[in-house]
Amino acid sequence: MRSCDVLVYDRLVAPELVEEAPADALRIRRHGLLQRQVNELLVSLGRERDVVRLKGGDPFVFGRGGEEALALAEAGVPFQVVSGVSALAAVPAAAGIPVTHRHLASQLTVVSGHDEHALDYAALAGAPGTLLLFMALGRLAHIADRLIAHGRAPTTPTAVIASGTLPEQQVVTTTLASIAEAASDLDSPVLVVVGDVVALGPRLCPRVLQSALPGRA
Amino acid sequence: MRSCDVLVYDRLVAPELVEEAPADALRIRRHGLLQRQVNELLVSLGRERDVVRLKGGDPFVFGRGGEEALALAEAGVPFQVVSGVSALAAVPAAAGIPVTHRHLASQLTVVSGHDEHALDYAALAGAPGTLLLFMALGRLAHIADRLIAHGRAPTTPTAVIASGTLPEQQVVTTTLASIAEAASDLDSPVLVVVGDVVALGPRLCPRVLQSALPGRA
Repeated sequence: MRSCDVLVYDRLVAPELVEEAPADALRIRRHGLLQRQVNELLVSLGRERDVVRLKGGDPFVFGRGGEEALALAEAGVPFQVVSGVSALAAVPAAAGIPVTHRHLASQLTVVSGHDEHALDYAALAGAPGTLLLFMALGRLAHIADRLIAHGRAPTTPTAVIASGTLPEQQVVTTTLASIAEAASDLDSPVLVVVGDVVALGPRLCPRVLQSALPGRA
Repeated sequence: MRSCDVLVYDRLVAPELVEEAPADALRIRRHGLLQRQVNELLVSLGRERDVVRLKGGDPFVFGRGGEEALALAEAGVPFQVVSGVSALAAVPAAAGIPVTHRHLASQLTVVSGHDEHALDYAALAGAPGTLLLFMALGRLAHIADRLIAHGRAPTTPTAVIASGTLPEQQVVTTTLASIAEAASDLDSPVLVVVGDVVALGPRLCPRVLQSALPGRA
């Protein structure tokens, strides 16, 4: 990145990282561009110059990195993917929540609340182990209601982690039935964790705000 | 890590990382110890000295990091979790496979083949999107058979990634029906990826060995 010609970066990328690009590099904020335009930009610039595409989330987990990579591959523009620390496991970890834990969860299911109308709530309610929801804050009340209506226990420990891993991280831990109300003051981006492992959070991370977990009210 | 008193490290950790510990630090290989013994070791040493526990996989995804953290928390020994690059998304990415991709996969399900008798094959066979299997090489023929018996298409693109992200990485890509045979020469550790996103691998990563993918035989 310290020798790139062009940096195309997301809104959520740390400013300190953007500063690592050379002073004379072209810096382009992705915010405001359509995905199609980003793909075209990367292909056009990538043909002639060294381009770094710095993504704010995990590019290959609801991050549309595959679409950008595919556009480059189809245009014959060489590229390399450099993985970082994925929010998928690091954000729960920052709240003291292991997504799997012996005797508590041996399966992890990950979906996006962005497409919540496409979710199979019956299957998700019945899936054993831990459920992780990306981009679910705006529809959390509806999602929680549907999971409960399909049989997930209303007392299932549930956490919402806002600005995970950052100094301003906030964590609210309560039950599935209460989570939408309890998390109503939080701002995106958040990760929602549903399952028994969530109850480990307050034991493993003192920064977790704990409210009305089963057996603790 | 450069100022720790004690380093407890896994077999799969890169030797270059172990070398970062101070020359006079106590270095303890975890290999050969029971999990209970590791927990006790961390608690005893952690009471008096600065201990780094360097895990070889993602500690909180089938890594038993939660058990070690819990032992420390219960003993009142302060600790901090520092997340690294998780194999969960980085290993598929290194094979050119995004675990989610618009129109191909909007759900990710992660299980361990280590407990394969405990898996709900009917639910896993019917789960939409991508299925990731950790520690599944030894039982892969059985697992693939069961998924197919419960309705997963035998032609589902499937990849086995061995030594993912390392220079010696090997990837075999074929169908679910053929994967156990095709991957029989690979050695652990591997990650198994089942789902339509796998077909992107050969397009996004030239190192993928491609054999008999649907429509390409």
